[in-house]
Order: sequence, then structure tokens, then C-alpha cells
Amino acid sequence: MFYSKLFGKTVREVSKQFEAKNHELLTKAGFINQVSAGIFDMLPLGKRVLAKIENIIREEMNSIGGQEVLMPMLISKSRWEATDRWNTVDILFKTKSQFDQEYGLAFSHEETITPLAKKYIKSYRDLPLALYHITSKFRDEPRPKSGILRGREFGMKDLYSFHATKEDLITYYKTVTEAYIKIFNRCGLAKIKITEASGGSFTKKISHEFNIITPAGEVDLIYCKTCAFAQNEEIATVKVKDKCPKCKIGILQKARAIEVGNIFDLGDKFSRAFDLKFVDQEGGQNYVIMGCYGIGTTRLLGTIVEVHNDNQGIIWPKSVAPYHIHLIGLDLKDKEVAKKANEIYKKLIDVGVEVLFDDRVEASAGEKFADADLIGIPIRLVVSKRTGDKIELKKRNENKTQLISFDEVLKL
Amino acid sequence: MFYSKLFGKTVREVSKQFEAKNHELLTKAGFINQVSAGIFDMLPLGKRVLAKIENIIREEMNSIGGQEVLMPMLISKSRWEATDRWNTVDILFKTKSQFDQEYGLAFSHEETITPLAKKYIKSYRDLPLALYHITSKFRDEPRPKSGILRGREFGMKDLYSFHATKEDLITYYKTVTEAYIKIFNRCGLAKIKITEASGGSFTKKISHEFNIITPAGEVDLIYCKTCAFAQNEEIATVKVKDKCPKCKIGILQKARAIEVGNIFDLGDKFSRAFDLKFVDQEGGQNYVIMGCYGIGTTRLLGTIVEVHNDNQGIIWPKSVAPYHIHLIGLDLKDKEVAKKANEIYKKLIDVGVEVLFDDRVEASAGEKFADADLIGIPIRLVVSKRTGDKIELKKRNENKTQLISFDEVLKL
Repeated sequence: MFYSKLFGKTVREVSKQFEAKNHELLTKAGFINQVSAGIFDMLPLGKRVLAKIENIIREEMNSIGGQEVLMPMLISKSRWEATDRWNTVDILFKTKSQFDQEYGLAFSHEETITPLAKKYIKSYRDLPLALYHITSKFRDEPRPKSGILRGREFGMKDLYSFHATKEDLITYYKTVTEAYIKIFNRCGLAKIKITEASGGSFTKKISHEFNIITPAGEVDLIYCKTCAFAQNEEIATVKVKDKCPKCKIGILQKARAIEVGNIFDLGDKFSRAFDLKFVDQEGGQNYVIMGCYGIGTTRLLGTIVEVHNDNQGIIWPKSVAPYHIHLIGLDLKDKEVAKKANEIYKKLIDVGVEVLFDDRVEASAGEKFADADLIGIPIRLVVSKRTGDKIELKKRNENKTQLISFDEVLKL
Repeated sequence: MFYSKLFGKTVREVSKQFEAKNHELLTKAGFINQVSAGIFDMLPLGKRVLAKIENIIREEMNSIGGQEVLMPMLISKSRWEATDRWNTVDILFKTKSQFDQEYGLAFSHEETITPLAKKYIKSYRDLPLALYHITSKFRDEPRPKSGILRGREFGMKDLYSFHATKEDLITYYKTVTEAYIKIFNRCGLAKIKITEASGGSFTKKISHEFNIITPAGEVDLIYCKTCAFAQNEEIATVKVKDKCPKCKIGILQKARAIEVGNIFDLGDKFSRAFDLKFVDQEGGQNYVIMGCYGIGTTRLLGTIVEVHNDNQGIIWPKSVAPYHIHLIGLDLKDKEVAKKANEIYKKLIDVGVEVLFDDRVEASAGEKFADADLIGIPIRLVVSKRTGDKIELKKRNENKTQLISFDEVLKL
């Protein structure tokens, strides 16, 4: 992609005060545009990152037997009434057809997945089953302020599982936990705390949150540094400086975190609401046991930025970077240099490398370097009068530069 | 994919009367599930086809310089008021935050794309520009009845283009027209009529519809069989049996058609509403000239089914088929045959072929063949006692069967 043609240029001077780093960096670097409170456009760079995150999630969901579907966002009032969430969930946006019924805009999809599963689940032979989709969700948040971490409209992957027994759900719950850790690791997030939390409107049991510890977080954790113990402060049965109730060694600490995923043991709450039963091996009728598992895709994007940045801008992990190489041409008024830079760009594209090529003739070297740092693509290559037959290489997360040949570029 | 594990089985007996062929076949074959009037789930098979359609569109949009973004569905009331569409467009669903503003659910995205473009378009150097996204749209249709051809919630690709001059818009309009024909052709739709139609709430000028002639259509066309002339009956200046006003040779006829795409010359309607101007080469301020170009992705899916089917079921064009090969194992209680069928399945997967493997042990041959015909995957392979070392091949759109070797399968 030619940077001169890319829609969504960097904006280094912004009068606005940002409350969250992801909001500031993604806006200044040209990845997102705020439309109204908690509502954002994904610009071409942001859309590319989001698609990569979605594909990582898709691969891991498929690898644990998840089947991808796509459910609608308009869900009839009668469905929400069946689960008693029409009048009790205050974040539910409502709309009304001028011809007939009212709808709630999906903040989650139990109200569609359960009746859908009911059409096909008849016997124990149809279980277990795991269905997921990746789509937009809506929540009427009072005052969205954390950039794309908490919006009124946002992207989400939600997986739902259906089981004959509680034991089978517990086994799958662990499988999903492992898949979630892989997803976050692949997105460059290593320090994940699996935290006991409230079940909200989903279950009376505790749920589990996947939290990334960072000062930018919105969740307060009480956790043990020695073992895996962690509780959301809202439901905590312990307090800071207590001895850890699990390992009996560590002293509990407090930290802020971003919740990037959550998993709920739904039990039979939703299968009871929609009368979702199956015939067991003995011919008996039983309620299906359900689990649900969410990852906020746009929130995950924002979290990656919160964790991977410095004073100059974003530092994308390669797996989700919008492009792998940021090629900068300097001295482009010099025909020789311009020709060389364009040749390198074309060769890289030809071998399938994802390249953003800063081909601007008028911009200064300083401006181009600052933009590259702000955008945060992992590898920066510079072609200029000075580099001669070589190409200057600098990695975004390192300070040193070196001159390498084109063949060496291909090995990066 | 093992058919025994696939979510969304065929349902050959349905009590419901279907008004549209796409609704009937996609439901019976397990591609979609109706949730409420005009609102559908995409099941795994349907989701796969939709993703292939989206990717064909994406490739063609990228090839004409379109940059992919993602805009939200909740659009503030003030935006709709700026274009005078809040109170005048009756299909607009509305919702309200309990904290502050009202929103309209996007039925189109001029109200977000124009203010977005305004943030970045300053001078003639920033033009032309083409942005598109693929996302859900909402329309409060009175009585949706054509399956996924006309829903209250549906998938759409919408492209918006921005130009310095009318001439530049006209040039790009032609480029998009050619890209659209490529898209429909790649999706297996050959007989496209580009039809003059009303501009609706988008423009006072005429728009152009891309129509596929079929009795299942909802649009009435007056068209010439000799040349390309076609008008939507709603705005027609001619009548059936008139001589064609364009070629002066053909006699005009009437036909029903499905509108799979539309393109609008928006002129400066939306750039005036949002004061989107650019500085021209002489330093003057001018309104940006805009075009918009839609393709209903779920509607396109439904149209393919309307065009490609027979009494037994769907006949997918290879480009959008959910899988390329439908492998049927018969006599699977015989261990030798079961082993061979599984080996062939595994080998095909290993070389990257998309295979749906009917591995059901209890289902009869007749049931399996009927399901294969209903689902409509282009190539059917059968492994049974009878086929020995060979594999039986039948194409969905042909009647003959033949025995071939595995090596020949790889060449299909």
C-alpha cells in the first residue's frame, strides 16, 4: 500500500484530551475515528488489524470443534422476556418495528442460539456441540470513556457450547480456557490472569474473566503473585495483604486490569427458558447444559495497544500488525533512489510480503520516521541516497539500525 | 467436515409453505434458519458461502482502489437530521440511549462516511477516494416474504467514492459497473441487466440497478432483448411492445428480476449536508462529488440459489460452494470400505481440498444421495463396496456417473 494513497493519515497534533492510551494512539496513528460516545469507525489500518485478530480467534475456535455461524442483532422482545432480560438488563438498546414487534439489540446471543440449537438437538448423539460467531454487539453504556475498550457498539466473538452432563461442560470449559490463552498469547498478550467474577445476568454461579494487568484497566483484581489465584474485587472473599487462600504462601495484591475475555457456566438457565431438552441413553428427557465464552475483538485490539506502546507510538506484535514492513523512501526527488525504492516495494509485494510504502515526496525524513514510530509496524526499512545498494533496517522494538541487502530482507 | 458433526442438518419434510425458492432450499438444505420475519441465522454451510461471496467482492473492490473500513450501525439522530432522512425514510429503525441521544440503525452509510471523509479530504490531492465496508444493515420492511432476498436485517457491501469533478465520478462509475459485472459473473450470475431506476432517498437523478431476470424477482423491468436498454417499470418512460428507444430495433418486453446491486450518482447532496469541500488547483472551495454503490451480500446468496437449482435442490457454482467435494461413504459398516473412505477424506484435506464427508453409518444410500443433491456441492464422490479401488464421480449439474482413480480426483 502506498502511504500517499492510504485513507486515515497520522494526526500528530490533536486538541482533544484522551482518557485512554488506545484511544489516543489509534486515533493519532490513523487506525480509528470516533463517531460519537463509544462508537467508532475502523479505518483501513484498524480494519486490517481487526481482521487478523478475528482470524486468530477463528483458527483457535475451529481447532476446538467450534462451528462458525452468524446470528442477527435484532432479537424479538418475546425472546428477551423468555429469559427475563427485557426489563432487567439496563444496557439493552430497544427498537420497534412500525408494523409489529419490538426488538432488543443483541448484547449477547443466548436468546438466539438456544432456540436455534433446539431445532437440531434431539438426542445425546447430537451433543456436545459448539457454535460461535463474530459480529457486533450493542450496550447502552452510561459514559463510554476508554476508547475502544468499552463502547456502545463493538466487535465480539461469542462461543456457546451444549452438553449432556455437567462433567462434559467442565471438560470443554477447560479446553476453551486453553484456547483463550493461545489466542491472547498469539496476539502478543502474555500476562493473563484468570479471575473469578460475578455471573451478571448470565448465571448465578461465578464466571471467569481473562484479565490483562495494566494501569489502563477498568477491573480491580485481588490476586496472588505466587500462584494463579485471582478474584474480581466486586465479588472478592479476600482482601489485600491476606495470605493467598489457594497456595497458602503468597500475599494478596491489588491491580487494575482489562478484561479481554470471559467464560460462563450457564448451567440450564437458558435451556430451561427455551425448553431445550435432549433424550439421554436411557430414553429420559433432560435439560441441555450450556456454556458461553466471549472475547471482545475490538477491545482486544485496544488492549494490545495499551500493552504494546512507548512514547513514540504503537509497537504491534507481528501477528496482528497491519503490515509487516514499513518501507520508507527518502530523497525521492532523486530519480535513481525513487526507482530503487519502487523496485524494492514491488519485489516485496510480489513475494507476498505485506508492505506499507511511504512514497511521499514532500514529507521530511523526520516526519516519516515519526509516522513510522506512531503507526508501529514491526520492521522499518529505509531506502535513501545514503543507503546505496543496501537497505537500512530498524525494528520498531529495538534502537539499533543496520544496513542489509535485499536478500537479507527476504529472510526477515 | 464430517457430516455427522455438521450443525444444521437437511430437513426434507417441512410443514411450512415457502413463498420463495431460496427460503425453501436454503432452509431444507441446512444453510439458514429463520428467526423472525425477515431475520435469519446463517448456519455453518450458509456462513461459508457468505464468506466466499464477501471475499470475491473484497477482491474486486480492492482491485479498483477501494479501501476497506468498518463503520458502526448506530448513527446519531443529528446525522440523519442533517440529511433530512430522520423523518422522511420510513424504513429507518430508531433506538434511544437512556442517557443521552437517539440513533437510527444504518440502512445505508452516507451519514457516517461523509463526515469521516471530511476529516481527511482537504485538497484536490486527496481525491479521488473510494472506501467500502461489508456489514449488516437494517430496514423496517412491512412484510418480508422473499427469504433472504428482502430482510429486516441483512448483509451488504457499500462502496462510496469521492471526486473533484463530475467527469471523474462518471469515469469511476463505469469502473465500478465493470467490477460489479465481474463480481456477479464470478458468483455464477451471467444474465445481468443494468436498469435505470429511481434514486430514492439518495439522489434526484436516476440510479442504476443490477438486475438478474428470474420469475422469483420483486422488480419489474421493461427491457430490450436486442440491446442493453432496461428501465425499472416504476420510472419507465416506455411500455411493453414499444420499439426500443435506444437501438430502434428491438421490441420492448417485460420481466421480473432480482436487484442484486445498485449504484447512485449522489452529486453533492451529502457533501452539502455535511459541508464536505475541497480546495481545487486554483485555490477555490468546491463541494466534493460523491457516488455510492451497494451489493446485498445475503441477497446475492439468495439470488444464486434462485438461479441455480433443480427439483432435487441447489446447484452451487464452484466459486461460492460451501465445499468443493461431497464425499459419500456407503457400506460403512464394512471396515475395509470405512477405512478407504476415511483415507480418501484425509488425503483430500491434506492437499487442501474442501470436503464435506458424509460419514453416517446408519443413513441409507438413497438418503445420502438426496441430501447431496439438496445441499448442491459441485462434485459428488462415492466410496462403497461396489466401487472397489475406484471412486464414483458425479457432478451435480450432470447426470452421468463414472469410476475414476484417486489421482484423477486430484485433477478435478
